[in-house]
Amino acid sequence: MNPPKTRGRPGMTSATRREFLKRVGDAGGFAAVFSTMHTLGLVSAPEAHAEEIKLPPHSGKGVKVVILGCGIAGLVSAYELGKAGYSCTVLEARGRPGGRNWTVRGGTKIEFIDGNVQTSEWGVENYLNAGPARLPSIHKTILGYCRELGVPLEVEVNTSRSTLLVTDKAFDGKPIEQRQAINDTRGHVSELLAKCINQHALDQDLSKEDHDRMLEFLRIYGDLKPDYSFQGSARSGAVHIGGAGPVVQELRPPLDMHALLDANFWRNVMFEEMLDMQATMFQPVGGMDRIPHAFAKKLGSVVKYKSPVAEIRKTSAGVRVVYMHGTAKKQIEADYCICALPISILQSIPNDFSPRIQAAIKNTTYMGAYKIGWESKRFWERDFNIYGGISYVMNAPVGVVWYPSARMMSENGVLVAGYSIEGFGPFSELTTVDAKLDASRAAVEKLHPGYGSKLTKPIYVNWGKIPYNLGAWVGPPHPGPNAFMDNSYYEGPYKEFCRPDDRIYFAGDHCSHLGAWQEGAALAALRTVNMIGDRVRTA
Amino acid sequence: MNPPKTRGRPGMTSATRREFLKRVGDAGGFAAVFSTMHTLGLVSAPEAHAEEIKLPPHSGKGVKVVILGCGIAGLVSAYELGKAGYSCTVLEARGRPGGRNWTVRGGTKIEFIDGNVQTSEWGVENYLNAGPARLPSIHKTILGYCRELGVPLEVEVNTSRSTLLVTDKAFDGKPIEQRQAINDTRGHVSELLAKCINQHALDQDLSKEDHDRMLEFLRIYGDLKPDYSFQGSARSGAVHIGGAGPVVQELRPPLDMHALLDANFWRNVMFEEMLDMQATMFQPVGGMDRIPHAFAKKLGSVVKYKSPVAEIRKTSAGVRVVYMHGTAKKQIEADYCICALPISILQSIPNDFSPRIQAAIKNTTYMGAYKIGWESKRFWERDFNIYGGISYVMNAPVGVVWYPSARMMSENGVLVAGYSIEGFGPFSELTTVDAKLDASRAAVEKLHPGYGSKLTKPIYVNWGKIPYNLGAWVGPPHPGPNAFMDNSYYEGPYKEFCRPDDRIYFAGDHCSHLGAWQEGAALAALRTVNMIGDRVRTA
Repeated sequence: MNPPKTRGRPGMTSATRREFLKRVGDAGGFAAVFSTMHTLGLVSAPEAHAEEIKLPPHSGKGVKVVILGCGIAGLVSAYELGKAGYSCTVLEARGRPGGRNWTVRGGTKIEFIDGNVQTSEWGVENYLNAGPARLPSIHKTILGYCRELGVPLEVEVNTSRSTLLVTDKAFDGKPIEQRQAINDTRGHVSELLAKCINQHALDQDLSKEDHDRMLEFLRIYGDLKPDYSFQGSARSGAVHIGGAGPVVQELRPPLDMHALLDANFWRNVMFEEMLDMQATMFQPVGGMDRIPHAFAKKLGSVVKYKSPVAEIRKTSAGVRVVYMHGTAKKQIEADYCICALPISILQSIPNDFSPRIQAAIKNTTYMGAYKIGWESKRFWERDFNIYGGISYVMNAPVGVVWYPSARMMSENGVLVAGYSIEGFGPFSELTTVDAKLDASRAAVEKLHPGYGSKLTKPIYVNWGKIPYNLGAWVGPPHPGPNAFMDNSYYEGPYKEFCRPDDRIYFAGDHCSHLGAWQEGAALAALRTVNMIGDRVRTA
Repeated sequence: MNPPKTRGRPGMTSATRREFLKRVGDAGGFAAVFSTMHTLGLVSAPEAHAEEIKLPPHSGKGVKVVILGCGIAGLVSAYELGKAGYSCTVLEARGRPGGRNWTVRGGTKIEFIDGNVQTSEWGVENYLNAGPARLPSIHKTILGYCRELGVPLEVEVNTSRSTLLVTDKAFDGKPIEQRQAINDTRGHVSELLAKCINQHALDQDLSKEDHDRMLEFLRIYGDLKPDYSFQGSARSGAVHIGGAGPVVQELRPPLDMHALLDANFWRNVMFEEMLDMQATMFQPVGGMDRIPHAFAKKLGSVVKYKSPVAEIRKTSAGVRVVYMHGTAKKQIEADYCICALPISILQSIPNDFSPRIQAAIKNTTYMGAYKIGWESKRFWERDFNIYGGISYVMNAPVGVVWYPSARMMSENGVLVAGYSIEGFGPFSELTTVDAKLDASRAAVEKLHPGYGSKLTKPIYVNWGKIPYNLGAWVGPPHPGPNAFMDNSYYEGPYKEFCRPDDRIYFAGDHCSHLGAWQEGAALAALRTVNMIGDRVRTA
């Protein structure tokens, strides 16, 4: 609340701003200040944020580009270069486009590098988006491609007030609805702050006018009684809602703030307010892979499937890429290369990269991530009024249960019980797949007692073990039990991948500040394509 | 926060409860105490809340029921009685089923009782749900009928963080995104409360353990800095999000709390937390009228359209209803009647009701409500990232702009600019339709400067002027500029309509505590049908 006495335009006074920057500088050094200055809009961004495509039609005539990897970055690159008349080839190791944008449905085979093989027996209409599963409405680039390519979208319900929270540390270990945690917390906070205001604890911070207005605001905000006490709220749900004849709504008593503190649900209930998790969000109707398939349809024979890259070489005039096709070793020469493979895969491909790129590849770690999906009757809809959204189990190996937004109201669907990083932590310490599946079922049982047994036909996708991925996204610099993400990737390898190595360019979510998002992959591809366009134009 | 020191199960101590009830009693008299006792779960509800249908198959064989009105209550009554073998006739004044569940689309004619006639020229794929437009996921009865009748549903996006708020009283009259108002407010509240806690203003209320846990909670809740100051949050949106290469996310400076108090958006931003407005919500694909049409298809010739009721008479053995069919006066006799007409319409139908019902009809007022819809290019999606949800304009005749959840990402759609009560207030004081439409366009222009002119083909539905409705729902006891809803309807007329008048029963949302909701109409119908079933069984 800085400064409380300044009227009018949003923002800070200069004095406040200076003091604030000093404080941040004390705490976090130059990088923190610089990042904070961006936050406050004091320095302009180094370039326009929206990557607008700048390639005139036919500008690429006669220019050959080989693109490695048919994930979103490779697809966007080939699609945009193709529109400008470039002659592109995309080399893809698998028999499908999309990379991590992979939808598992009935009949899909999942093979791990350790020999584990699963084949989904789900109905063909049921699916698991094993990789990306959300399209935030602020991700204009990828949404724009859905529009352009005619990929039908539907709402992905990322948060729902009927979803549940459960912990052994409060409420007798019984689940509560998120509407209770969220609205009872707001009620208690409002009551406490109103109490402080009424006791004049904030008279230094609030003018007389604001004093009164804050109280009136808190009454509405927390659904307080006229005496500013919080006594429960219809917002937190009802034992039963109003009905016909004599049936009046019967509310729940409020949850105790002390118990809510015991429960410590905070990070989970605030998840919905993360900028890229906020409503409205989307998913393609029928599975996320409708996006790469729509690109691939446009590209046709430009994409060579089942063609894993074996060598990346520089030539005097450009690049030469060796790839396998069955047992045959083939090669392709081109003027430029866009390398849109995961860095985890680049680590084992012989190449002519310059030392700075080889070092950057070596210094980039990838993090594992997993999802477990089950086919089930939609008991969460019929018996719990839960339609989409996420429930949370505290302090358990599997802490996330994500309800499908696809085909709501139908008979069965795929419940995601478990989506998190893998490689360290309690889930990773479960050494067998069966133990992991048991933990997944236990999370559902904890939230929905008696229903764990309804889950059938589990599918476990561990990106760290998927060939041609060997990881989900860029990970912490020093993987392990105490691993944490710092800025070292962005200060080191990232800067190298953002610059071409002779005629080899890099693209992918790892070349953006939207790591692990399709939007990041698409923006990185557009930036790379524009860089090639500039070079071709000025050559 | 009562009581802060009680661990474990949610709830209140007895002492707190007694004090609270006394306080409520002082303020609101017996009714308030009684309603509050329900709230706290101290008295059990008079009957089970879910109206389960209790009619055995064939139990109605040979029993004739005439049902007046083919809205949701009439349809549910006829459908359930029909399943049990009753012989039903539904008399409907219009040529369509649904009553207030009415979807205006291309070609729909809207006629007011004052002679105003509009014919929609929208594309047939565009529509306005002129009456109900939302199905909360907690409304299990009407959702259950959608499931049973195979009405495809899609998510109705009732709230979206990208929607806007605008007022002349703050922010230079420029719109802000709801994500800013919501998250900056939470940040300021958290900072202020943390300050009070750190200054020991709440030491009497918080144990040492809770003191520290509250601070840690507030840091997460408000996205505070380590020193518990609020300096803005990514939750509140970005000038631009992260991008490729050097483009890092640039956050917005936080809105000032003083300016937020000036703006006074509170009731609007809390709308999403009303129990029956909370995510997840639904709408039928293609328009709300898919529900009555699905019932009507099942009922077939049971429904007599264009048959307005002219008289409701009692006979020695049951009921006789006179109705018009063209210029012909017809009549039907039956053992029972379910009167599912709006009370506003009953007021002018000659009848044999007993004095208590006649008085109840006379003492029930109806309130007007309107919606204005425009066909438009979806500029709100392409240029503002707004997909569904509601924006608000403060202190304007039209204060609500509601974005369509139907056919998102398509070329054009119907924007609802104006939905509120009508009969008093600034919008009602605009005496011509043109002035109302101008106010509607002005609201859109205020939120989306330069876009007001994109709106075409306005449709204005005023339920107070729609024949066979003459109102939207039960209104305040004394309509007028200072009208307010009190409990007098529920304490008076409601109780009469909930009891049969000889062999005439009443049904509709006005016979439920879910007024103006389809769920209320369906529950009231089920209750009535069960009452008739009990009577037939024991006769």
